[in-house]
Amino acid sequence: MARSSLYQQVAAEVRRAIYAGELAPGDQIPTEADLMEAHGVSRNTVRLALGELENEGLILRMRRRGTFVRERRPLLMRPQDEFLPYDHEGRRFDTFVHAVRSEGRTADQRIEVSIVEPPEDVATRLALADGALAVVRRRLRFVDGQPYNTLDSYFPLEIVGGSEIARPGDITRGANRVLEELGHLQVRVIDDLSARMPTSDESSRLQLEPGTPVVVHTRVGYDADDTPVRVAVSVLPADKHLIRYELERH
Amino acid sequence: MARSSLYQQVAAEVRRAIYAGELAPGDQIPTEADLMEAHGVSRNTVRLALGELENEGLILRMRRRGTFVRERRPLLMRPQDEFLPYDHEGRRFDTFVHAVRSEGRTADQRIEVSIVEPPEDVATRLALADGALAVVRRRLRFVDGQPYNTLDSYFPLEIVGGSEIARPGDITRGANRVLEELGHLQVRVIDDLSARMPTSDESSRLQLEPGTPVVVHTRVGYDADDTPVRVAVSVLPADKHLIRYELERH
Repeated sequence: MARSSLYQQVAAEVRRAIYAGELAPGDQIPTEADLMEAHGVSRNTVRLALGELENEGLILRMRRRGTFVRERRPLLMRPQDEFLPYDHEGRRFDTFVHAVRSEGRTADQRIEVSIVEPPEDVATRLALADGALAVVRRRLRFVDGQPYNTLDSYFPLEIVGGSEIARPGDITRGANRVLEELGHLQVRVIDDLSARMPTSDESSRLQLEPGTPVVVHTRVGYDADDTPVRVAVSVLPADKHLIRYELERH
Repeated sequence: MARSSLYQQVAAEVRRAIYAGELAPGDQIPTEADLMEAHGVSRNTVRLALGELENEGLILRMRRRGTFVRERRPLLMRPQDEFLPYDHEGRRFDTFVHAVRSEGRTADQRIEVSIVEPPEDVATRLALADGALAVVRRRLRFVDGQPYNTLDSYFPLEIVGGSEIARPGDITRGANRVLEELGHLQVRVIDDLSARMPTSDESSRLQLEPGTPVVVHTRVGYDADDTPVRVAVSVLPADKHLIRYELERH
């Protein structure tokens, strides 16, 4: 997926200045002419770079008034990043933690692990038999100390019982890595995206302002035998998240 | 992306029966035992098939009460389908029309074509110079005669001026095909998804019920030179659409 053309290098530099706080919310960013000179690039390249940053919700371009750092930045989530390689310590890439940290913000989470008879739709997606149990790892995730979103991950107890997934606490190398060690590497995922108004429970847990919908992102992960081994349900307040997929023609 | 395993064949048969009206909304669908016998497959395969149909919003499984055809079916949108090959008449695949027709429903649309100074965020995404113009093709799309969603596609006038894209009316082979003929085959797209409450104009055009958010799907298409040649903004009422991406590990 990754490319790094000239305009992306310019975008990266301005992004870095914003995340580093050299450019604060509300600040005007350098003019096109300044950026052209500073980077030795064409006007078109500068415009592509600024377009990229606006797409990410980092800046706001006001024609004839200039370009400004936005006050409120939606977190850019890239669901495809889960397939990135493990890092050098063998840890799975956590797309949320990565997205938050790459913006210079602090990610934190609370995890509760329980064994449950999952909701109807989750049981169906996991193809569980009647009454079969699942391990659920429920996370409430924070950015800079503020509640930000939730992620509930369900795994068939039959598969993960006895593993770290069924025990309380964080798994440093990630639950997907544990599934892989159990012989269930996920080779395919199906992502369903929809939106709705939050439940009152979600409103209070996530401290939502009135009139804020949530995006529900449900990922089902399948192993090489086409067995569903994970259902992950994220509830993402719509004012604070932007979800991005990149597709290439093959 | 396509696979057709055993459970998908069972799912296809039940789906067909629903779309054909052999199974009407509210009807109970055959039991797992019946489906196992009818298709000569295992219980697990039947469960995977039903899981797929539930994911699509076609059926509702009520444990211990049976499985029923849902009353209201969200339209399953697959943004990746735009990259499917052209059909035998050389027409671009229209993901909306395809999604609607494959459910046995009728798709219809009204198209208005105009030349405009596009909104700020669209101008930025297209990397347009100040005051540069774009052709916008605005569609209001209908399913079974009811307004369903909108799609506004913007193209730089500099690129498409003089082509069919800049003229009123439908383009049978699709605007993307015209772009390709103009030397701007889109090789990469970036999809941004977010949700918000509708504007009052959207509420009335799309006949939304109160408290219904919309999903905004913005696709930017890039040609081989990384020039953005199309910005397509869909406004999808959240109660009537489900958006699905399928990803495979490479």
